Amino acid sequence: MPKIVDHDQRRAELADAALDIIAKDGIKALTLRAVAEAAGWSTGVVNHYFSSHHDLLVGALRGAAETQGRMFKQLRHDASLTPLERLGQLIESVLPLDDRRIAMTRIFLVFYAEAAANPAAREEIVDYLANWRRVVRRVVAECQEAGQVPADADTTKLAAELVALSDGLAMHAMLDEQVLDGVTADGHITLQLAGESWRLAAR
Amino acid sequence: MPKIVDHDQRRAELADAALDIIAKDGIKALTLRAVAEAAGWSTGVVNHYFSSHHDLLVGALRGAAETQGRMFKQLRHDASLTPLERLGQLIESVLPLDDRRIAMTRIFLVFYAEAAANPAAREEIVDYLANWRRVVRRVVAECQEAGQVPADADTTKLAAELVALSDGLAMHAMLDEQVLDGVTADGHITLQLAGESWRLAAR
Repeated sequence: MPKIVDHDQRRAELADAALDIIAKDGIKALTLRAVAEAAGWSTGVVNHYFSSHHDLLVGALRGAAETQGRMFKQLRHDASLTPLERLGQLIESVLPLDDRRIAMTRIFLVFYAEAAANPAAREEIVDYLANWRRVVRRVVAECQEAGQVPADADTTKLAAELVALSDGLAMHAMLDEQVLDGVTADGHITLQLAGESWRLAAR
Repeated sequence: MPKIVDHDQRRAELADAALDIIAKDGIKALTLRAVAEAAGWSTGVVNHYFSSHHDLLVGALRGAAETQGRMFKQLRHDASLTPLERLGQLIESVLPLDDRRIAMTRIFLVFYAEAAANPAAREEIVDYLANWRRVVRRVVAECQEAGQVPADADTTKLAAELVALSDGLAMHAMLDEQVLDGVTADGHITLQLAGESWRLAAR
């Protein structure tokens, strides 16, 4: 019986391999050949799923966005955490604290830069950011219900700022590790900006 | 008598022309020929100052960083503003609210993406961000002296977060104009995150 190929799964595997390469050696190291070697397939197979360097980048971006989307969803519904802990986890989930998140920050940066000139990339990024803000807004609203965020705060604005702050910190930390030192001291994400009531606990 | 050429000034003019092109048509429109046409020189002259596309990008980046550095300095010493107004102006000075700032955000994005793989670009960006944080930290300390920021706040952390927030907002606003709508309502920069005491007035 011929082996049945799960194309979605293989595509996801190759996208993961692409992310690993970006994490370890940067965007410029991402080639069809490098992905083939890392995933244990021929370049012909890789080429079947991703026909160019740009295709590979888009595949890796989508893979990163899907992984991140699943993580947002999981955190959003984790009943073992208080709303404020969930918020802390949401912020921490995008900071470049391990290889996966370093790769994610790198690839998003590339697409942010590209999005200005490429409407397809722009649409993808805009949707991703809108979803991220939506998830954060819901958790901020839960914090508000729990009395951990002022009752009169504008949750939509707060979410947009928290997402901008998280993303800005991620990008600056990619370039200068010292940026993270202050934010992640003592195993906590502490945001001075948001004051003491906002001490965001990490697990 | 032969005309004396001010090389620094001509280089700065060409870098400005490069920024104009990036603002209007994006990074991909930046070519030696386009700069030559915009500045009214031959491509040979442009080539004398910037020998490649990458050189042009670096020139434009330095031009943008210098302009922004002068603006930081000027705001920092503007005695007609309260410390909190100065802080508001510092934040507003990087948001993509006009062509110059749109070009600046675009070009910084390109170099953020490149910095991961290019140590020279990285060093330049890291220095720029460190200077930006230093300027903001000084103004935050002045706000603290004036009682507009809590006395026990960590000004270094606060500055790092404000700079990350400003930069994150700038990048997200480049991609999605709605992001700016909430922040710049009523001619003010209002940061929900920082609470009512932080209502940052624009001029």
